[in-house]
Amino acid sequence: MTATATTTKQFLNAEQVLEHWQGHRNLTRRVIEAFPEKELFEFSIGGMRPFAKLAVELISIGGPGVKGIVENRMEAYDEEKFQPKTKEELLKKWDEETEVINHYFAQISAERFQESFNLFGQYEFPVYQNILYFIDNEVHHRGQGYVYLRALGIEPPFFWERFPVM
Amino acid sequence: MTATATTTKQFLNAEQVLEHWQGHRNLTRRVIEAFPEKELFEFSIGGMRPFAKLAVELISIGGPGVKGIVENRMEAYDEEKFQPKTKEELLKKWDEETEVINHYFAQISAERFQESFNLFGQYEFPVYQNILYFIDNEVHHRGQGYVYLRALGIEPPFFWERFPVM
Repeated sequence: MTATATTTKQFLNAEQVLEHWQGHRNLTRRVIEAFPEKELFEFSIGGMRPFAKLAVELISIGGPGVKGIVENRMEAYDEEKFQPKTKEELLKKWDEETEVINHYFAQISAERFQESFNLFGQYEFPVYQNILYFIDNEVHHRGQGYVYLRALGIEPPFFWERFPVM
Repeated sequence: MTATATTTKQFLNAEQVLEHWQGHRNLTRRVIEAFPEKELFEFSIGGMRPFAKLAVELISIGGPGVKGIVENRMEAYDEEKFQPKTKEELLKKWDEETEVINHYFAQISAERFQESFNLFGQYEFPVYQNILYFIDNEVHHRGQGYVYLRALGIEPPFFWERFPVM
């Protein structure tokens, strides 16, 4: 990559990455809210999943992933467990997972972030990479939600607005 | 966020975040490649920009942003400077920026990542947040590119495949 040794340079700490992630989750929540009820569960482009399905994927990864890391469990990923029928039900579960993530994330040590973990018994990577994957996967699918909203003639929330206005 | 003090816990170091970013950039490069020439510059959904325009935005942010941080310059963001007419021209510039990013990123110190910087004279945030924004913005727009490809009946590259097969 580069010849300069940067190994010991801290880029950001655990508290900062959690705040970053929850900021993204707050934005994703507002994208879910922006969909009309019917389109949230039905609208799609090019054979892709409707946004409710993408949101259920995110719900099935974030909290369960962080909990699995802390408890050192490698249970298979399962998005069949939670099948919301309404936007309200989806948002309620979203908020519950916010607390699950805060609770378990705080228990991961600096050493653990660098250790390899077989996430969901399938993805063997250092823990920090697993967590970056949770965030990236959310930003990726939410970007797709933005296209759905635009195609529906709905203005999505600003990408850079991550926190609720109090 | 959470009551547990995590301030001193390193999440990842500078070398790791650069590798992570360049992995994403490699995937975005393959998404550019996946578009047919004409659709790269013309296809859009819901009044959004074609993928070539989104790629030019990414090119105008990443390298210039990191260079601006290192040189402490706050020049305005400018995506009018580079107006590629072909996919080849776009990919050539993409690869040049890969080197620009590697070169300047290595010069940022751990202290600097935590200092506030007025990026492009417009976005006043800690440097680590500016850099996370470069990555997130890329993942966001690339996710939109995936919808364009699907709508065109083209299979996009796997999201989790970040590095070229040697």
